[in-house]
Amino acid sequence: MPSWAIGIDLGGTNIKAAVVDEAEGVLFEESQPTDVEGGPEGVVGQLALLAAELFQQGSEKLESSTFAGIGVGAPGAVDSSKGLLSYPPNLPGWGRYPLRDALQARLEQSHGMSVPILIENDANAAAYGEAVFGGGNSFRDFMMVTLGTGVGGGIILDRKLYRGPNGTAGEIGFMIIDFEGDSVHAGIRGTLESLIGKQRIVELACSMLQGQDSSPRLMELCSLDLSKVSPRHMERAAKEGDPVALRLWQRVGSILGVGLANIVALMDIRKFVIGGGIAAAGQLIFEPALMQLHRSTLPSMHEGLEIVPAKLGNTAGVCGVAALCFASGHPLRSDD
Amino acid sequence: MPSWAIGIDLGGTNIKAAVVDEAEGVLFEESQPTDVEGGPEGVVGQLALLAAELFQQGSEKLESSTFAGIGVGAPGAVDSSKGLLSYPPNLPGWGRYPLRDALQARLEQSHGMSVPILIENDANAAAYGEAVFGGGNSFRDFMMVTLGTGVGGGIILDRKLYRGPNGTAGEIGFMIIDFEGDSVHAGIRGTLESLIGKQRIVELACSMLQGQDSSPRLMELCSLDLSKVSPRHMERAAKEGDPVALRLWQRVGSILGVGLANIVALMDIRKFVIGGGIAAAGQLIFEPALMQLHRSTLPSMHEGLEIVPAKLGNTAGVCGVAALCFASGHPLRSDD
Repeated sequence: MPSWAIGIDLGGTNIKAAVVDEAEGVLFEESQPTDVEGGPEGVVGQLALLAAELFQQGSEKLESSTFAGIGVGAPGAVDSSKGLLSYPPNLPGWGRYPLRDALQARLEQSHGMSVPILIENDANAAAYGEAVFGGGNSFRDFMMVTLGTGVGGGIILDRKLYRGPNGTAGEIGFMIIDFEGDSVHAGIRGTLESLIGKQRIVELACSMLQGQDSSPRLMELCSLDLSKVSPRHMERAAKEGDPVALRLWQRVGSILGVGLANIVALMDIRKFVIGGGIAAAGQLIFEPALMQLHRSTLPSMHEGLEIVPAKLGNTAGVCGVAALCFASGHPLRSDD
Repeated sequence: MPSWAIGIDLGGTNIKAAVVDEAEGVLFEESQPTDVEGGPEGVVGQLALLAAELFQQGSEKLESSTFAGIGVGAPGAVDSSKGLLSYPPNLPGWGRYPLRDALQARLEQSHGMSVPILIENDANAAAYGEAVFGGGNSFRDFMMVTLGTGVGGGIILDRKLYRGPNGTAGEIGFMIIDFEGDSVHAGIRGTLESLIGKQRIVELACSMLQGQDSSPRLMELCSLDLSKVSPRHMERAAKEGDPVALRLWQRVGSILGVGLANIVALMDIRKFVIGGGIAAAGQLIFEPALMQLHRSTLPSMHEGLEIVPAKLGNTAGVCGVAALCFASGHPLRSDD
């Protein structure tokens, strides 16, 4: 009988939570704004309440004997074995926090629930979600790259999450491909995030429009106000054939391709699953990325190169932590 | 009782071979020019003869019951499981060659020897050698980087060789850190090898000396002939305090540091063992590399960063393939 679990994606803006079935994927989900002001205590209260509610909902439809546990994906450095979350970005004041144990205690205290809990880095969780339920389903080894406000990643080797010796692997946004260039992010010059993070893409569009390039269509889409130009506008303009927008995505894709080439050279991974809001541009990015990937790698490494879109959208994280609960192979038995 | 094995390093110029003891390392070694003209057939004959001679020598001092086998490190893509060597650089005309089976057949036919044989990529072999006998002895996870004519690497994860899904992992020389730069190697722009391969380092020195920089000491060392300037000269001049030579190594080290930062971000590996002829410059390279490594990574990833010199010099390869024979755990028993 398939297991089910509760997956929670703790973000700096919203908390997403879902009941995930091993066979069916997401059954139902909830979302609410993160109580950032409340600090760790407040957020743990929110997580416990959400989990208790979803457990109730799930138990009405599913066998509680096949419940596998609660998984929480969180930003920042996560020590899964100790259940520690360290300095999550966008959650100020958390420091190094024992999220697993705090949530465990709160669930018992306030809701009388005693269930297995695991904590995972959110990018890793998304990669694992895509591996089990999404775009990486058919790949043994792949890297998931998330293009959004930031550029993040998670690595799947031999169908397992590769966390690295200290649990910080997959930070492709901090890969340097232009070490003497002008763009800087988080104090580091020439990183992938500094070159194709969302903000940078918007800046690039503005500088193209302020320069020699003119695009009546893009100007129309942003109501003649360059400060309002967004990736969505550029996606739409490109799909209508606007040459400035096309050139922009061409560049974004090529830069992504250079980053992926480094993963091929270093880790011999040749499959890439690309998700995140920016990746909605789809083949506008993937085609130039794949072309660049071929140009930037040795011919002996071309066999099997593939770039595919992620499939789970913003449920990749909740699916991933739930799948990690299934994989941990310790379903909670009510008759224990 | 410790095992022993024969390690062979097949290069485009020379073949090195050694009897390696599990406890003591290299006991005796031989070297001879590679019969490149003879093609695969000729070279396999050389390898078989060398192995037979060394087996004889070894058997005079060591228990033949503890002989673990023959390991061969070779340049290019190696499929260890099938014993295939593909398109080794500097060995023209080899194509995809079944080196293990060919050597096995020749050893039986010409020398009446039937022993286990394994084939490994030479950079991987060197990394494994350093892991077992050398500079990586105390590290659980590290990357070995070889700085020489080319820039190569091998990755050790959890004390095991990480070969990657297709056996081509660790090609750090093809990592791109200057994607819009001027330097190109093997058709790829801005790779680490294009920036700090031996030839490029010499060119850099020449262009510094032809530019605004003057270095009477460097000019003296190369007998006033810039075409003769070598890394050795630059190492010596730097150690005597020559500012041009110091600046050159500073740059080489910084560029190396950028490359290592990418490994930290992607794989979460924080220990680096640096070998190869260029690495003889030692701290002249390692110090700026470590400084750059700190500048080019997030503070949360600084813990445990370390760069150490390789210890085995040009015996890393033979030690590594021998150690792989020990690890394969199938010592040949004479009483079988």
